[in-house]
Amino acid sequence: MAELFLEDFAVGQHFTSGTRALTAEEIKAFAASFDPQPFHTDEAAAESSFFKGLAASGWHTAAITMRLQIDSGPPIAGGMIGAGGEISWPRPTRPGDVLHVESEIMEVKPSKSRPERGFATLKSETKNQDGDVVQLLIVKLLVWRRPEYGF
Amino acid sequence: MAELFLEDFAVGQHFTSGTRALTAEEIKAFAASFDPQPFHTDEAAAESSFFKGLAASGWHTAAITMRLQIDSGPPIAGGMIGAGGEISWPRPTRPGDVLHVESEIMEVKPSKSRPERGFATLKSETKNQDGDVVQLLIVKLLVWRRPEYGF
Repeated sequence: MAELFLEDFAVGQHFTSGTRALTAEEIKAFAASFDPQPFHTDEAAAESSFFKGLAASGWHTAAITMRLQIDSGPPIAGGMIGAGGEISWPRPTRPGDVLHVESEIMEVKPSKSRPERGFATLKSETKNQDGDVVQLLIVKLLVWRRPEYGF
Repeated sequence: MAELFLEDFAVGQHFTSGTRALTAEEIKAFAASFDPQPFHTDEAAAESSFFKGLAASGWHTAAITMRLQIDSGPPIAGGMIGAGGEISWPRPTRPGDVLHVESEIMEVKPSKSRPERGFATLKSETKNQDGDVVQLLIVKLLVWRRPEYGF
């Protein structure tokens, strides 16, 4: 797919990423670096926790979602640059889960102050192999306008 | 500090984490795994990008923030479990930055349906060594009530 500028986006556009499987070892390695809580690092301790079993750090799910978007999400010209947004994790990501991301454009808006750029609001659902949503991210992305539009 | 239950939290409480320095090598390694875009992986390419120099992935900043909270943030009984929230990155995190997290309790609310638990809304500013906010996270945390309250 060609690189996408602001003019190429429209409300309702859909994108579906490829898939990525996640192992217990990856969950524990990420958690050891960034979120060393027993329910992310130790199967036995996780059993008696809120999660009732090993669960990935939400930030690990977020990071994998980003990787899926970079590899096979909307190819935004100049890269995928998020200003911020809303994130939630309705269910935990588990060892053996195979994740993919389904995204939809919610809003497309030229910048009022910067004629060469604009924003696209992207809603991304990260789903496991059963179709359960493990992460919902609504993010405001910086998107460039086509250079031939004179900017 | 003793483990904190819902009854221990109050609106306006502050917490300040320890610090963590970040190297260009760490920025590039995280990005290679999770956010392989040139402005996160390559100094020369980053110079001509939106970021005008190497910048950490926002998810790397988020992951480091989590690690700082686990090591030296509010010691919540049962762990720090976020249901979701709002995140933004007002400025990039750069190689050599020394980050810390300043947090404040915004709301404390018992669950209506589950008497043994409640929620605390935590606003966390991740700041660099100059006091610039590189990440703002407002997150709704699951917090348990004290067992002696009868639950």
